[in-house]
Amino acid sequence: MQSVLSRLWLTSRLLLCGCINMAEYLKLQSLAEAKSVFLQNLGTVIPVRETIDSIKAAGRVLAESVIADEYLPAFSRSSMDGYAVNSADTFGTSESLPGYLKIIGELPMGAVPSIRLMRGEAALIHTGGMIAQGADAVVTLELSHVTEQGDLEVFKPVSSGENIIFKGEDVVPGDEVMPAGKLIKPADVGGLFALGKLTIAVAKKPLFAILSSGDEVIPPDQTPKPGQVRDINSEALAALIEQNGADYQLYPIIPDDREQMRRSIRLAFEAADAVVVTAGSSASSRDMTADMIRELGVPGVLVHGINIRPGKPTILAVCNRKPVVGLPGNPISALVIAQFIIKPLIEHMLGMTKEAILPLVKATLTVNLASLAGREEWIPVKLIREGNEWLAEPIFFKSNLIFQLSSADGLMKINADATGKSANSQVEVLLL
Amino acid sequence: MQSVLSRLWLTSRLLLCGCINMAEYLKLQSLAEAKSVFLQNLGTVIPVRETIDSIKAAGRVLAESVIADEYLPAFSRSSMDGYAVNSADTFGTSESLPGYLKIIGELPMGAVPSIRLMRGEAALIHTGGMIAQGADAVVTLELSHVTEQGDLEVFKPVSSGENIIFKGEDVVPGDEVMPAGKLIKPADVGGLFALGKLTIAVAKKPLFAILSSGDEVIPPDQTPKPGQVRDINSEALAALIEQNGADYQLYPIIPDDREQMRRSIRLAFEAADAVVVTAGSSASSRDMTADMIRELGVPGVLVHGINIRPGKPTILAVCNRKPVVGLPGNPISALVIAQFIIKPLIEHMLGMTKEAILPLVKATLTVNLASLAGREEWIPVKLIREGNEWLAEPIFFKSNLIFQLSSADGLMKINADATGKSANSQVEVLLL
Repeated sequence: MQSVLSRLWLTSRLLLCGCINMAEYLKLQSLAEAKSVFLQNLGTVIPVRETIDSIKAAGRVLAESVIADEYLPAFSRSSMDGYAVNSADTFGTSESLPGYLKIIGELPMGAVPSIRLMRGEAALIHTGGMIAQGADAVVTLELSHVTEQGDLEVFKPVSSGENIIFKGEDVVPGDEVMPAGKLIKPADVGGLFALGKLTIAVAKKPLFAILSSGDEVIPPDQTPKPGQVRDINSEALAALIEQNGADYQLYPIIPDDREQMRRSIRLAFEAADAVVVTAGSSASSRDMTADMIRELGVPGVLVHGINIRPGKPTILAVCNRKPVVGLPGNPISALVIAQFIIKPLIEHMLGMTKEAILPLVKATLTVNLASLAGREEWIPVKLIREGNEWLAEPIFFKSNLIFQLSSADGLMKINADATGKSANSQVEVLLL
Repeated sequence: MQSVLSRLWLTSRLLLCGCINMAEYLKLQSLAEAKSVFLQNLGTVIPVRETIDSIKAAGRVLAESVIADEYLPAFSRSSMDGYAVNSADTFGTSESLPGYLKIIGELPMGAVPSIRLMRGEAALIHTGGMIAQGADAVVTLELSHVTEQGDLEVFKPVSSGENIIFKGEDVVPGDEVMPAGKLIKPADVGGLFALGKLTIAVAKKPLFAILSSGDEVIPPDQTPKPGQVRDINSEALAALIEQNGADYQLYPIIPDDREQMRRSIRLAFEAADAVVVTAGSSASSRDMTADMIRELGVPGVLVHGINIRPGKPTILAVCNRKPVVGLPGNPISALVIAQFIIKPLIEHMLGMTKEAILPLVKATLTVNLASLAGREEWIPVKLIREGNEWLAEPIFFKSNLIFQLSSADGLMKINADATGKSANSQVEVLLL
């Protein structure tokens, strides 16, 4: 009964503010502005470090820069299969006037050559083999020929250093080979092992507390009674947060009750590095969420509403240097905003220095698409292969239809200044 | 000594075949052809299933189709905050001739309404709330006004069904909501929970055996003696294979010895679902790898050399229905081919039905770039932000310089029929 009364109170407040809400709608921040205000107020985050095995480091973010303490390569080596020679011995050679060198043996793999080349001599060398003393170039197999007498016939001069990778050509001791804040890729894992760095300090994954609210929402392991729906926002967000490099903790579903919400959010706020609350689907529930977030600390709510569809009723707050995000209850809105706000938030908290590059695909729009000018819009699309091209087929979704988003491959943007897009126009699709 | 002799024998064989190799080079398969021959010979793979918690399913591939056994939504609900009405009561209303309805209460969240609407009545409803009997539409808060007497003033007609999501509008029992072979995204996790599916059958990750060979290669936890290099291919490949959804097992480094290589590859082949061998960097070592793979079963080596740079000396084989890949020893080549061959191979083995969509970024090339016509080329590039654009700055790499690949954000393609690209031209960069 208390809940119904408070809801009525909230609703009447909403009604009284009807005109004010319309005005607020017009001054909603753009997604780019909202994200920027949010992350700037959060300030620089120094992530907690942890040391892990380098082989498990792909997808993590470096907590410290990696400095080479060795030369790479550690010795000058051939980049081709061929013959180590003194380049001066090849000068002036041509197809019509070949030069002849005496093959004195083969250079070993994985060991220092015992051979030292004299002028007029050549030695067989394999890719990766250490260059012998007296040699300064490699004649490739393709450009050489062994005569019946066993001599090397050379048809073309090689310059000094040709087909050799010199000691330290990749890195020398003291080089910063990877900066702190770098997202580690498989090639970087290779680089770490090249320097013998078997473990590495990375940013510890931040812990996100995930809360859902709403009297109609029940845990997904329960069977909904008429009027109830299973919580799907917490679970989908957990998957997205984990895929983007953070840990999560799910909290019990909060009913639409101010005191219970206050306690639950406070508890999560104390325990986690960041809090994400998906509001109940009603405006009053969203409003209550904003009130509760405001109480957590300063500066508090920075953004209340973003000029984007879906996802308008988003709340972004920083409370005592901790980020708190209030997401719309509609799962499609929640996941779109998670993509554009929570993903960059995680990267920010991990200390990633380089802006994430969004994976886009060029496609041809299959239909005319209207849009409200003045609002950035993201339309779920299916991508259909046609020859070498992708076709983007919009999914006309209604809020809350999760399987419509599930069937989408990506999101297509319509800029705030556009009123739509024509069929057959080229569009860019952000892969989900 | 045996090793040196066998290497000499192989090398001389290579020399004798010099002209044949050149001819073979001209008839090398394109990357697309090579991949297609490889996967076609592998045939359809029925992946082993395992059941996991749905919340951990993002990034996995469905082993069976998901069939809805419930209606979603389970009941007709409002998609807006507003008032449930009988649409007929709003017909003919306008700004100048509003209609008036009696507000008889509020519909509850999460429960069946006890109210039944009579003609001329309205009830407050929240987004997600169950529609009351007698109502067939929702007038939004924005388009309604409560008079001082507490009546609802309606300015605009609503049509039957307006602002309502009907029972089963997303799915009905028996709908296939996700096909087997689908890569599970966070939104799909939401969909699974919406249906109460707490666990799900996914394709078990295939096990890749990873082997490196070469007399010069040592385990990365050892300090290289002069002439030796640490194995970095196994580790970088392990990271890439894991990132792309498979498991891996690292095997001891194989010296360039036919018997040891035969034993090691056979052992790995028996134990794993797929084998990846990175050859030593020399041609003779690569040749030996091909010989050993040939012995594993039929049809054997399908592709020996791909018309691509880097990565030409790639071996693709199917032996008794198991895939075996021989990668070039050069780590840059190995990682590029892993991207184009091993990633699709994993997807194929997981039973993924939909072609993976490659994440590309449009960028402006910063310099003129020459290329050999007749060969597909992939150039590592850095992506640099300039305003709203990306600049692609090629990294001029020499083979084996791992930190040059480490510093790249992506790979830029030059088609086989092109002789290069001009500065300021638009290019597409595949994100690494």
